[in-house]
Amino acid sequence: MTKQTQPTAEPMFDVAHLAAIELYSPRVDESVRFFTGLLGMLEVKRDGRSVYLRAYEDPYRYSLKITDRKEAGGGIISFRAHSEQALARRSKALADAGLGSGWKASDLGTGESYHFTSPDGHKMELVWDVHYADVPSDGKSPLLNRPSKRPTQGVPVRRLDHVNLLCSNVTKNKNAFIEQLGFRLSEHIVTGDGSELGAWIRTTALAHDVALMQDATGARGRLHHVCYWYGYPQHLLDIADLFAENDIKIEAGPGKHGISQAHFLYCFEPGGNRVELFGDAGYLIFDPAWKAITWKEADIEKGVIWIGASLQGEVFRDGTPVVEEPAAPAVAAE
Amino acid sequence: MTKQTQPTAEPMFDVAHLAAIELYSPRVDESVRFFTGLLGMLEVKRDGRSVYLRAYEDPYRYSLKITDRKEAGGGIISFRAHSEQALARRSKALADAGLGSGWKASDLGTGESYHFTSPDGHKMELVWDVHYADVPSDGKSPLLNRPSKRPTQGVPVRRLDHVNLLCSNVTKNKNAFIEQLGFRLSEHIVTGDGSELGAWIRTTALAHDVALMQDATGARGRLHHVCYWYGYPQHLLDIADLFAENDIKIEAGPGKHGISQAHFLYCFEPGGNRVELFGDAGYLIFDPAWKAITWKEADIEKGVIWIGASLQGEVFRDGTPVVEEPAAPAVAAE
Amino acid sequence: MTKQTQPTAEPMFDVAHLAAIELYSPRVDESVRFFTGLLGMLEVKRDGRSVYLRAYEDPYRYSLKITDRKEAGGGIISFRAHSEQALARRSKALADAGLGSGWKASDLGTGESYHFTSPDGHKMELVWDVHYADVPSDGKSPLLNRPSKRPTQGVPVRRLDHVNLLCSNVTKNKNAFIEQLGFRLSEHIVTGDGSELGAWIRTTALAHDVALMQDATGARGRLHHVCYWYGYPQHLLDIADLFAENDIKIEAGPGKHGISQAHFLYCFEPGGNRVELFGDAGYLIFDPAWKAITWKEADIEKGVIWIGASLQGEVFRDGTPVVEEPAAPAVAAE
Amino acid sequence: MTKQTQPTAEPMFDVAHLAAIELYSPRVDESVRFFTGLLGMLEVKRDGRSVYLRAYEDPYRYSLKITDRKEAGGGIISFRAHSEQALARRSKALADAGLGSGWKASDLGTGESYHFTSPDGHKMELVWDVHYADVPSDGKSPLLNRPSKRPTQGVPVRRLDHVNLLCSNVTKNKNAFIEQLGFRLSEHIVTGDGSELGAWIRTTALAHDVALMQDATGARGRLHHVCYWYGYPQHLLDIADLFAENDIKIEAGPGKHGISQAHFLYCFEPGGNRVELFGDAGYLIFDPAWKAITWKEADIEKGVIWIGASLQGEVFRDGTPVVEEPAAPAVAAE
Repeated sequence: MTKQTQPTAEPMFDVAHLAAIELYSPRVDESVRFFTGLLGMLEVKRDGRSVYLRAYEDPYRYSLKITDRKEAGGGIISFRAHSEQALARRSKALADAGLGSGWKASDLGTGESYHFTSPDGHKMELVWDVHYADVPSDGKSPLLNRPSKRPTQGVPVRRLDHVNLLCSNVTKNKNAFIEQLGFRLSEHIVTGDGSELGAWIRTTALAHDVALMQDATGARGRLHHVCYWYGYPQHLLDIADLFAENDIKIEAGPGKHGISQAHFLYCFEPGGNRVELFGDAGYLIFDPAWKAITWKEADIEKGVIWIGASLQGEVFRDGTPVVEEPAAPAVAAE
Repeated sequence: MTKQTQPTAEPMFDVAHLAAIELYSPRVDESVRFFTGLLGMLEVKRDGRSVYLRAYEDPYRYSLKITDRKEAGGGIISFRAHSEQALARRSKALADAGLGSGWKASDLGTGESYHFTSPDGHKMELVWDVHYADVPSDGKSPLLNRPSKRPTQGVPVRRLDHVNLLCSNVTKNKNAFIEQLGFRLSEHIVTGDGSELGAWIRTTALAHDVALMQDATGARGRLHHVCYWYGYPQHLLDIADLFAENDIKIEAGPGKHGISQAHFLYCFEPGGNRVELFGDAGYLIFDPAWKAITWKEADIEKGVIWIGASLQGEVFRDGTPVVEEPAAPAVAAE
Repeated sequence: MTKQTQPTAEPMFDVAHLAAIELYSPRVDESVRFFTGLLGMLEVKRDGRSVYLRAYEDPYRYSLKITDRKEAGGGIISFRAHSEQALARRSKALADAGLGSGWKASDLGTGESYHFTSPDGHKMELVWDVHYADVPSDGKSPLLNRPSKRPTQGVPVRRLDHVNLLCSNVTKNKNAFIEQLGFRLSEHIVTGDGSELGAWIRTTALAHDVALMQDATGARGRLHHVCYWYGYPQHLLDIADLFAENDIKIEAGPGKHGISQAHFLYCFEPGGNRVELFGDAGYLIFDPAWKAITWKEADIEKGVIWIGASLQGEVFRDGTPVVEEPAAPAVAAE
Repeated sequence: MTKQTQPTAEPMFDVAHLAAIELYSPRVDESVRFFTGLLGMLEVKRDGRSVYLRAYEDPYRYSLKITDRKEAGGGIISFRAHSEQALARRSKALADAGLGSGWKASDLGTGESYHFTSPDGHKMELVWDVHYADVPSDGKSPLLNRPSKRPTQGVPVRRLDHVNLLCSNVTKNKNAFIEQLGFRLSEHIVTGDGSELGAWIRTTALAHDVALMQDATGARGRLHHVCYWYGYPQHLLDIADLFAENDIKIEAGPGKHGISQAHFLYCFEPGGNRVELFGDAGYLIFDPAWKAITWKEADIEKGVIWIGASLQGEVFRDGTPVVEEPAAPAVAAE
């Protein structure tokens, strides 16, 4: 009979969830064709050098913004606050922590959003009052809780799931997410010397809304991947079949992660960014006093891949933007 | 472009989730064999007239207590608070609202829990400091986020999902859950005269942790069903195959609900209580300003069954304990 | 220990399999859009009043010919012989049995095929030397055993599976298939008075390539349905989702037949013909001395639907072309 | 438009299908527990040093005989003829080809069966009059075409699928199967010098009932694996989950073969023999003039693994009985 220690402070609920992400692509048209033609996403807007897309069950105006850039990489990551008051509290805390960049216009929000960065420099914003999906009447579904009809193109993803960020120092970045934004730690990989190789953190019932992984090159602020959600394992087999016939590189999977328990597949979109697809809900965390799962070095392989082939080293090294060569040892001393 | 109206008050996060339920069974041994032999649940304790069970991914000591009674029906429903402070706040509010029954011993909690009822008299408790699953070392999984090994018996359910309560008046009961416990409304069915035939409410990202449906007999405080979760549609087909060969009555499904979007199956355990099984995650709600979905009378059929055969009237009338005959019109005036 | 009685005669292997079918449609364009846009079939040719289609794993030029007609219904059904010699033997036998219509041009074959009818008048042909699928190089798959790339449109069916014919007298038609074409009986429904309500017959390992069902209207030579094959239960859920949003009527399912064990769905294409979709392989018959399964009246419901809602009477009555009203009792005396 | 060349001879249909196989195990009890406890097979008889098992949809007395031996390996492989006359014809042809070992008692047949070997020495028998499954009445399914109820233990396989034999010379062994037994070639791997590294051959609609692969050690007559069939991809995920928690080594998969298109998983039973599990029907071959698919060296990887991680070299080298070290180059000159 385990007795859980009572937390002295109450949990913070100011950040609701991951709402949208931006990818930089040197091949915007091909990137868009990948997300629309194969993943069945809807193009909702083109504006200057950016194209906005959403999956058919994404609630807001867009969940993916693809911006023309010479190099692949991750742009701004948008989180939504739980209330206007929560946004005010977080913006103050982020500013106090020296991570704030101020109030700026938001594509997702109806007005300005609060912009900030991770300690590593990953760009983010927090928004409250958002633009919802604007669906034409012939695109509306009689399934009233589904914002748009299910597309008949490709194997359509249902919604944005999570983002995975490479970090020069996992713990330092994790602490900022926990302290400034109220994320909770679901699982992490801890080496013999106590340093963290990866941390999976959440603001929702998902095992993670954000993952932070050690950048083996020592670079700062890179993107490992963005993940969209199917919910059904068969769809990973279906999309893998399409990828194999349409020159999309599958890096790993379909397989099942130990961490998160999710059925997954890693591929690269034509712009060069890694994209993950999830084929189930994994496990959900409802326990309010969840004790973080610690994977030690001896367990890492089962933690990373529970069912399927072991991942190759490149999975742990490659991110966008691409960096020439390792600038530092796998676990940066700091 | 829809602009959402800002709530003036911040949401309440005091209740974390549904943690356990109790069923009354006139055939306890057969009920237990159903849940262990076919649904792969683990028997964890026998105590007096009750047997305690948990699914292999349930986190706590038990999620299902089956108690010997002459008549089938629902017993106490256990919710877990988000913190000790949250429990204190809710117990006071429930007492103030006249719904409290006081502090009493809890099987799930390490000490006393706060007991209360719905306006209809459904018995409930709110608990903070709980007993976690006590798993023997040979029952532990190398998949560290899974509390127990996956059973090799039956088609094992993964965890408790939700409970569905029949009400003499949906709106009145719904309001108590919302006002006293901080539930949020996900979807509801509203008739032409404005009365609610059903309400699906949540404290988590699930489309519902509790459903409230009009009791067509006008009775008070009955149970419609308890639901366990698979997460994979194939498992509904697998268990349906076992049910068909092992004299378990499938009332409806496998099919897909419109409301919640969940792949489901309704059956009756040998004690006479309806049990639902969920074969996917349905859709999850992350939007903090979610606008409740309203199914009007013309949409009800799609709302109830999106894919599969229409439900028969019995589904809307039968609950436990069984009542002889309708005591009142379908929608009770109050 | 069952000892099987030895057959005195060796089995006949002259007919290889069902190769193609023709549907009449009063709305050819809409029918074609259904089969291409939702079922992902490939349009391969338009010729006069007919459009030819194939699924991406169908081996021949086409498996479906849709011909413009005032009324829905089934046209010619094409079977392929196992050899040139087999074709010669069967054509002679059919002629001798008074079922032959002579050698005529074939769309599927490279020359003439032997045309014949069932006792009820269903039009058929037997062909040996066929036109294979003519796939442009950019449509070829690197998966060498797959004739065409998997389409990215709709939820694409993989191949033609079987055809179900309504008969004024099941036994009489069944006997012709068995005696003249070498079909074997897999399963049948036999009423108390010994008459057959349905017979499922095969020339392959499939539980049936052809089904024959009693026409409750007493009409002759009608089509009950044509069936295409997915092989994965999830795809029935996927296509059902698309049907529900795109005004395609699902008559029954997804469910599981007892007879054939196949996961199925019945819908109507816009021309009015019933189409079945199969979501797995059901069971395959390899036993060369297979003893036909007999479903008696008491078992019919489990035979027709093993998992899912009971079928409505319309399923057993409706066929194409539509007939005004029952012309005779359900089981025709003859 | 491809015109197919007409075969001058008619196909032979004397061998119906693979009916049973024997495995040698140095750990019979553990092997039996693997097949019953995890794969849900039924133990039907113990006799001397052998245990007989069948899957719940296997039609005959047994499909797997596990015999106590010091070393793992494959024992006798049982095929069933299409008729008594076919058995007579094949026994004569095998005797004439110098492959016959004479008439001997058969466990599967009601009397004697004809015993023979492959050129490599793999032991086989051909049987006509067989013992069918003898199922007690409480084990019978109301699903009349299913010989036994679906077990509630493990993730139960449905039936024997195929056997894969390592050969010192693929072509020589393939020719014997084709010429003496009437197998047809579905797919093969051909190297630049024209030698065959593998051949997938059939007597049914399955893409293969027997596979022959080059033994990289040059040894003769070894077993690569035996395969059982699920028919549903989810069951590969389910059994893999059980394997990961119950110390069963998964060698490869779940993944999808190019050759056969089957979703598969390779594991080792505790006796040391490789077991494959199939999670769908792959593709079925109905075309009576099927032109064998040739995978050239450049295509091998896609042929072996269409979706999933590349196989390691061990998969191509290891078989049972285990041999110490390569006795010859991968492709034996003969």
